[in-house]
Amino acid sequence: MSEITNIALDAMGGDYAPVEMVKGAVDAIQKESAMKVFLVGQEDKINEELEKYQYNKEQIEVVPASEVIETAEPPVSAIRKKKDSSIVVGMKMVKEGKADAFVSAGSSGAILVGGQVIVGRIKGVDRAPLAPLVPTEKGVSLLIDCGANVDARPAHLVQFAKIGSIYMEHVMGVKNPKVGIVNIGAEEEKGNALVKETFPLLKEEKSINFTGSVEAREIPHGQVDVVVCEAFAGNIILKLYEGVGAVLIKKVKEGMMTSLRSKIGALLIKPALKATLKSFDASEYGGAPLLGLNGLVVKTHGSSKAKEVSNTLAQCVTFKKQKINEKIKASIQKEETN
Amino acid sequence: MSEITNIALDAMGGDYAPVEMVKGAVDAIQKESAMKVFLVGQEDKINEELEKYQYNKEQIEVVPASEVIETAEPPVSAIRKKKDSSIVVGMKMVKEGKADAFVSAGSSGAILVGGQVIVGRIKGVDRAPLAPLVPTEKGVSLLIDCGANVDARPAHLVQFAKIGSIYMEHVMGVKNPKVGIVNIGAEEEKGNALVKETFPLLKEEKSINFTGSVEAREIPHGQVDVVVCEAFAGNIILKLYEGVGAVLIKKVKEGMMTSLRSKIGALLIKPALKATLKSFDASEYGGAPLLGLNGLVVKTHGSSKAKEVSNTLAQCVTFKKQKINEKIKASIQKEETN
Repeated sequence: MSEITNIALDAMGGDYAPVEMVKGAVDAIQKESAMKVFLVGQEDKINEELEKYQYNKEQIEVVPASEVIETAEPPVSAIRKKKDSSIVVGMKMVKEGKADAFVSAGSSGAILVGGQVIVGRIKGVDRAPLAPLVPTEKGVSLLIDCGANVDARPAHLVQFAKIGSIYMEHVMGVKNPKVGIVNIGAEEEKGNALVKETFPLLKEEKSINFTGSVEAREIPHGQVDVVVCEAFAGNIILKLYEGVGAVLIKKVKEGMMTSLRSKIGALLIKPALKATLKSFDASEYGGAPLLGLNGLVVKTHGSSKAKEVSNTLAQCVTFKKQKINEKIKASIQKEETN
Repeated sequence: MSEITNIALDAMGGDYAPVEMVKGAVDAIQKESAMKVFLVGQEDKINEELEKYQYNKEQIEVVPASEVIETAEPPVSAIRKKKDSSIVVGMKMVKEGKADAFVSAGSSGAILVGGQVIVGRIKGVDRAPLAPLVPTEKGVSLLIDCGANVDARPAHLVQFAKIGSIYMEHVMGVKNPKVGIVNIGAEEEKGNALVKETFPLLKEEKSINFTGSVEAREIPHGQVDVVVCEAFAGNIILKLYEGVGAVLIKKVKEGMMTSLRSKIGALLIKPALKATLKSFDASEYGGAPLLGLNGLVVKTHGSSKAKEVSNTLAQCVTFKKQKINEKIKASIQKEETN
C-alpha cells in the first residue's frame, strides 16, 4: 500500500462552506484510498454534513476549530488574533507534520500570510509564490507569482522559474516545460528594469527550459508552460483573464438573444458551447498552490464547489507522491552551494 | 466655415497600406468638409490608389516620402537614419505646424520614439503616454499608459490621470470621467511601491474624479473611464485583452462545430453574434493617441482598414475642435504654478 497523504481541509472557507467542502472531501477519498482528510472547523456543522454520506470513517476526521476568518478581515491581525480559526488550526497541522497539505477556499490574504508565518518557507526560498493554473488554447499554464509579495527582485523570479518548472513537470506531467518571462516585447532588450535584469539570469539557468520573453497576448495561446512574473503583474493577468472572459461570454449570450432566429440557434448550440467554455474555466483545474513552503498550502477559488475541492485534494496526493518539496529543496540548495 | 484640421496620414504604414490608408482618407473627407489629409509616402503608389476615387481635390494632397520604416527595425536608429520615411516626414509636418496631427498604422516603436524626438512634448509634460481605448461592457475606457516608457514615477501617473480625463471628457464626451488606478486590491493600503505612493497624490488632485483602485477584473466591466497605470502593466492589459478575446472566440466557434445540432445553431446565430462581438473589438474605436505632445500623434492598429483609418481621422478633428492640447497645457501649467 502506498503512503497516506494527510490533508487538512478548511471546512469553513469559501462561499459554499461547509456543504461543498464536506462533499468534496467525501468524493475525494472515494477515489483515492491513500488519502486522509482532516475537516477543520466547527464540529457540529461539519458532522451535520458528514451524516449525509456513507464513507470510510478511517479516511475522514473532524478537527475542531471554533473561529472563522472572514474574507474582509485584515489578514495579518486575523492570523494573529484568531488562534482557533480553521485557517490557523489547519496550517499548524502542516507546521507540526500532522498534515502534508492544507487546502482552503477562504480569505486569500489570510492564507498567504498564514502560509509564510505559520507554515514557513523552505530554507533558501526567499519568497513563497502563489501559482494558479490558467486555461490556454492548448491546456493550462502555470502563472507564477500571483501572490501578495509585490516588487520582487530578479533572484526571486529565478526561484519562481525553477519552482514552477518542477511543479509543471512533476504534478502536471509536462515534460521539460517551457518557461517564459512576461514582457512587453519579444526582444531581449525590451522590458522594465526588473525584466531586463532577470532575463540574463534565466538564460544562464541550466536547470530550466527558458524560451525568452512572453507577451501577454501569447499567454492564452499557451506559448509557454510556466509564465514567470512579479506578483503585481501576475495578479493583473489572473484577474483580467477572469474579467475579459466573463464580459465576453455575457456578450455572446446577449448576442444570441437579439432575434428569434438567434434564440433558436442558441438553444441548439447550448450544450456544445457549455462543454467548450468549461475547458476555458479556471475553476476546473483545482486550486492555486502556494509553493516553497514547509508543506503544501493550496488556495482554491472562493466559489469552489465539491468538484474543485475534490480535484485539489487529488493534486495534493500527486504533490506528495512526486516529492515536490524535496525536489524544490534540492534545486534551491544546489543554487546555494554553487 | 469652421477651421480646417490638417492631418498627415502615413500612407505606407500598416498591413494594408497604401490601399486601405487612401480609402480611409477619401471616406473621411467625404464625411467632414473641415478636414485636409496629407497622404505621406511613395507618390506613385499613392496616386495609383487615389485614381480609383472621385473626391474634392482640395481636401487631399500627396506629400512625397521615399522611404518606409519596417516594423522589425530598431526604432531609434530607424528614426535617425530614414529621414525621408513617411513617419519622419509626417511628424516633421506636425512639428513645423503644417499639420495638426499625424496618423500611422506603422511601427509602434518608431511612432513612440518619433513622437518624443521629432514632435516633442508639451512644456511641463514629463512623459507622453500612449492611450488606447479598450472595449468594456458599458462602452469604452481609456487605458493610459501603454507606451514604451516603463518604470514611471508617481508624478507621471498623476499627469496621465489629468491628461486622460481631459481626453475622455472632451473627445469621447464622458462627463466627469471616473479615474481609477490599476491595483491588486480595492483597499488603499494594497499595491506595489509605485501605486502606494501615487494613490494619495491622485486623491488630493482636485481636477480629476478619482474613485480609487481598480482591479484588473473590473476593467472589462467598465468600472472606471480612465484606467491609470504604468506602461508595463498597461501593455500587459492591452495585449491580454486581445489574447483572451481571440482564444475565447476561437473556443466558441470550435464549440459550435462539435455536432450537427450545434452546426445548425451556429448558422442561425451567426449574424447576431458577429454584431455583438464587433462591439467588443478594439479596432472599432479608432487609434490610440500619443498624448502630451506639441500636436497629436495617433497610432492605429497594424491591421487597420479604411474604417478604422477614417474613424481615427475624425477623432483628430474633434481633438483640434475641443482644443485638447490647450486644455492639457492649462492643466499642467496650473500644476507647475501651484
